[in-house]
Amino acid sequence: MFNKWRQSLCLIFVFVLLSSAVAKVEPLDAAASDPNVMGWMQGFPPADDRIIGYPASDYFSFPKLRWTFCHFREIQATKRVGRGLGSVTPFSEALDPAIDDVTFTPIGATEEMTWKASLDANYTDGMLILHRGEIVYEYYSGCLDREGRHGAMSVTKSFVGTIAEILIAEGDLDESKLVNEYIPELAPSAFGNATVRQVMDMTTGLDYNENYADPESDIWLYTAAGDPTPKLESYKGPRNFYEFLQGAEQKGIHGDAFIYKSINTDALAWMIARATGKDFIEHLSERIWKPLGMEQEADMMIDSLGTPFSAGGLNLSLRDAARFGQTLLQQGVWQGEQVIPTAAVQSISGGGDPAKFAGAGYTTLPGGSYRSQWWALHNENGAYSARGIHGQAIYVDPTAEMVIARFATFPISFNAAIDPTSLPAYQAVADYLIKKP
Amino acid sequence: MFNKWRQSLCLIFVFVLLSSAVAKVEPLDAAASDPNVMGWMQGFPPADDRIIGYPASDYFSFPKLRWTFCHFREIQATKRVGRGLGSVTPFSEALDPAIDDVTFTPIGATEEMTWKASLDANYTDGMLILHRGEIVYEYYSGCLDREGRHGAMSVTKSFVGTIAEILIAEGDLDESKLVNEYIPELAPSAFGNATVRQVMDMTTGLDYNENYADPESDIWLYTAAGDPTPKLESYKGPRNFYEFLQGAEQKGIHGDAFIYKSINTDALAWMIARATGKDFIEHLSERIWKPLGMEQEADMMIDSLGTPFSAGGLNLSLRDAARFGQTLLQQGVWQGEQVIPTAAVQSISGGGDPAKFAGAGYTTLPGGSYRSQWWALHNENGAYSARGIHGQAIYVDPTAEMVIARFATFPISFNAAIDPTSLPAYQAVADYLIKKP
Repeated sequence: MFNKWRQSLCLIFVFVLLSSAVAKVEPLDAAASDPNVMGWMQGFPPADDRIIGYPASDYFSFPKLRWTFCHFREIQATKRVGRGLGSVTPFSEALDPAIDDVTFTPIGATEEMTWKASLDANYTDGMLILHRGEIVYEYYSGCLDREGRHGAMSVTKSFVGTIAEILIAEGDLDESKLVNEYIPELAPSAFGNATVRQVMDMTTGLDYNENYADPESDIWLYTAAGDPTPKLESYKGPRNFYEFLQGAEQKGIHGDAFIYKSINTDALAWMIARATGKDFIEHLSERIWKPLGMEQEADMMIDSLGTPFSAGGLNLSLRDAARFGQTLLQQGVWQGEQVIPTAAVQSISGGGDPAKFAGAGYTTLPGGSYRSQWWALHNENGAYSARGIHGQAIYVDPTAEMVIARFATFPISFNAAIDPTSLPAYQAVADYLIKKP
Repeated sequence: MFNKWRQSLCLIFVFVLLSSAVAKVEPLDAAASDPNVMGWMQGFPPADDRIIGYPASDYFSFPKLRWTFCHFREIQATKRVGRGLGSVTPFSEALDPAIDDVTFTPIGATEEMTWKASLDANYTDGMLILHRGEIVYEYYSGCLDREGRHGAMSVTKSFVGTIAEILIAEGDLDESKLVNEYIPELAPSAFGNATVRQVMDMTTGLDYNENYADPESDIWLYTAAGDPTPKLESYKGPRNFYEFLQGAEQKGIHGDAFIYKSINTDALAWMIARATGKDFIEHLSERIWKPLGMEQEADMMIDSLGTPFSAGGLNLSLRDAARFGQTLLQQGVWQGEQVIPTAAVQSISGGGDPAKFAGAGYTTLPGGSYRSQWWALHNENGAYSARGIHGQAIYVDPTAEMVIARFATFPISFNAAIDPTSLPAYQAVADYLIKKP
C-alpha cells in the first residue's frame, strides 16, 4: 500500500542506507562513537561535517544517532509532558558495585560476559536498576546524564497502552468496540472493523511493512507523514499521522496473529483522544507524570497538527522511566496511592496469547506474547517489558522485585541484535538480587 | 542591505500583512481573542481553520499569536535551559487584591483607568508583582498558567546582556575589545571594528531595518535565516544566524547613537560563546537557572545549527521571569548568595547615555537610555526594564522595591502602543506600594 507516496523520500532513505552500510563494515565501538568524542554540534558554528539536523536529515544514522537520541527536541517540534508544580518523589539509593561483576552467557555465545562489559557492548547511554524500589545501579554515558532526556522510541507505546488500560478500567474506553465507533474517518480503512483490543494487542491485519532496514518500508512513509517540519514542495504523501492512518489497507484477518505495526499505536492514541476529549500527552501528564512526582518534564515529538508521535515520540529521563516501571511492579501503587488501577496492571503483566505471537519470528523471545503495547516474556520470573529500537527498555521482573530502565544507541535498530547481550544479563542480575540477603 | 535575499520570503510576509490589516480594522478584544475561545489547535484533528503552524506559517499574526506565544516549542526546534536537579526556591505570598483598584491615567489620555482594566487593555497573559520579594499580585489568562512558558521575545536580550556583564565582571569578556578579536569571521562585516560595549549598548552603526510592520524589513530576512525548519528549495538567503551576521553592512558611525537592532544581541551571544567555549544557553542554565532555583525549565528557540535565537528566543515561566528581576533588585543576591556580581548589576541599573538615546524616537521613554541590553527609564524611582514586542516585560523599580513581570500578546508589536497603559500603571502601583504601611 501507499505506493503512490513512494516518491520524494530520498532524503529519509539516505540515513537508512548509511546506517546499514556502516553496520556492515564494523561499526565504531561505544567509546569511539561517543558523541562527545565525535564532536557533533560542538563549536560556534560546528564544523560542516559535525552538524546534525536539517538539511542533511541523516540524524538517525549511526553514529550520529548517538547524539540525536538526547536531542530530538533540537531537531523538531515537541510538546511538553508536564510534571506539574509538585515536589519530586525521591528514590532511596543503595548502590551495589558488585553488580558490575555479575556474569552471564549471551544468547548464542559460549563465553561469559560481565554486566559491566555488556554496557559498552550495548552502546548503553543510561542504565538504572531498582531492587525493591531502591536504586542499586545507575550509569550514564554518551549523550546522557541524570538531567537529560533520551528518546524512548517504542517504549512510548507502552505508555499509550497503559493509559488505554487505565481508561478501560475506569469505563472511559471500551476494548470490545470497533475502531470506527470511535473514529468514523477510519471506517473505510483497514482499522475500521478491528476492535480496540485488537489494535492494543497488534493483532490487526494490516498491509504495512515495518522493516527499518528497508528504505521502501512503509515505516519511512509513515515517518515522513509525521515529520512536523514543512514538507518539500514536491511532497505528495500524507501530511500527518491521521491522514496516514486513513490510508491503511487490510492484509490478513483481524485477531488472527500478532504482527508488530507501529500504526496500531497511533490509531489507539487517536481513539483515546476522541473517547476522552484529551490527547495522550494530557493523559500522560495528569495520570502518570504528576501523580508519580516525576523528576523531569518529558518531551513528546508531534506532527504538524500537534498530534503526538504515539508510537515512538516520548523523550524522558532514565529515573522517570524506572519510576514508571516500579509503579507497575507495585501493582499501580506509588507512595501509597493507587495511581494505576490494579486491573490495568494485571491486564498488562498477564501478557497476551503466546500462540498468536509464535509465528512472528521473535527468536530472542521464545514463548513470549504482546498485550496492551507491552511485551511479556512468560519466563519463570513473569517478566514483561517495554521495548524500543536501538535498545530502549523498561523491564519489570516481579519475582526479583527488580525494574531495569535502559537507554541505548545500538548501531542496529532491531532489538534481536541487542537482546543476546541484554535479556540474559537482566536475568543474571535478577538471579543475583534474589539471592542477595 | 541583504537585497539579494529579498526573494522567496512571501510566506513570512503574509503574517505581517495579516497582522497589520487586522489591527487597522479594530482587533478582537482580549476576551474575544482568548485562544481558548478561538479554539486554536483543539480537536483531533483541529478544524482546518483552527490549525496554527506550518505550512500556513502565519502563527505570528494576531489573533493566532495569542496561542503561539505559549507554544513556540510546538512549532519549531528548541533547546532546554536546564534548571538542574535542585529544589525550587519558593516565593512567599502576600496577595493584595486592592491593587486591582489602583488607578492611573494612560499616556495621552484624560480619563483614568484601573489596574484591573489595564490587564485586558494590554491583552495580558500573565502579570506578577513582587514587593520586597513577596508575591503581592499574580494573574494568568489566555494561553498561560503558572506551569506554562511564554515567549519572552526581546526580554531574552536582557538575559544575554546580563550574562555578558557577569563575564565582564569576572574578566572573561573584555568590553573594550573589537568584535573581530573574538570573531574573525565578522571582521569584513560592519560588526568587525565595533567594540563589545558598542554591541552591548546597540550604538553600532548598522544598515539594518527593524520595522516589524514592514514586510521588506531586514528583521524578516533575519527571521528566515534563523528559522530551523528546512528551507524551501527556492530559498537563497543566509541559512542561520551566523551567516546572517556576516552580511551586516555599515551605516553611520559606531558609538554615535543608540539604534535598536536585534542582530547586536546575536553578535554579542556569538562573542560570549567564542570567549568562553560555552553557548549562551549553557551560561543561562549554570549562572541563572540553577543558582536561582528556578521553578521551571525554559525553552530556547534555535536555528538549524543549534545556535540560540538570542535576540528573542527564550520561553520561560512568569514566576521565573520575576525571580530574575528580583535578583537584580537585590544587587545580584539570591537566598544570601551573590549569584550576579554587584558590578554587573550596577552597570545595568545605572543605565546608558540618555544623549545617545534621545534621537531614537521612543516617545514613551523620554529621558531614557539603553545599556547592556536593558532599558533604563531614568525616572524618579530609577526603574529599568527588559522589554519585548507585544508586551513582554521585566520591570525593576528599586525605590518601590518592586518587580513586575508581564507577558502579553498585544495585537500590535510595538511597545509604544502598549506603554501608555503600562508604564503609568506600573508607576501607580509603585506609588501605592511605597505608601503601604
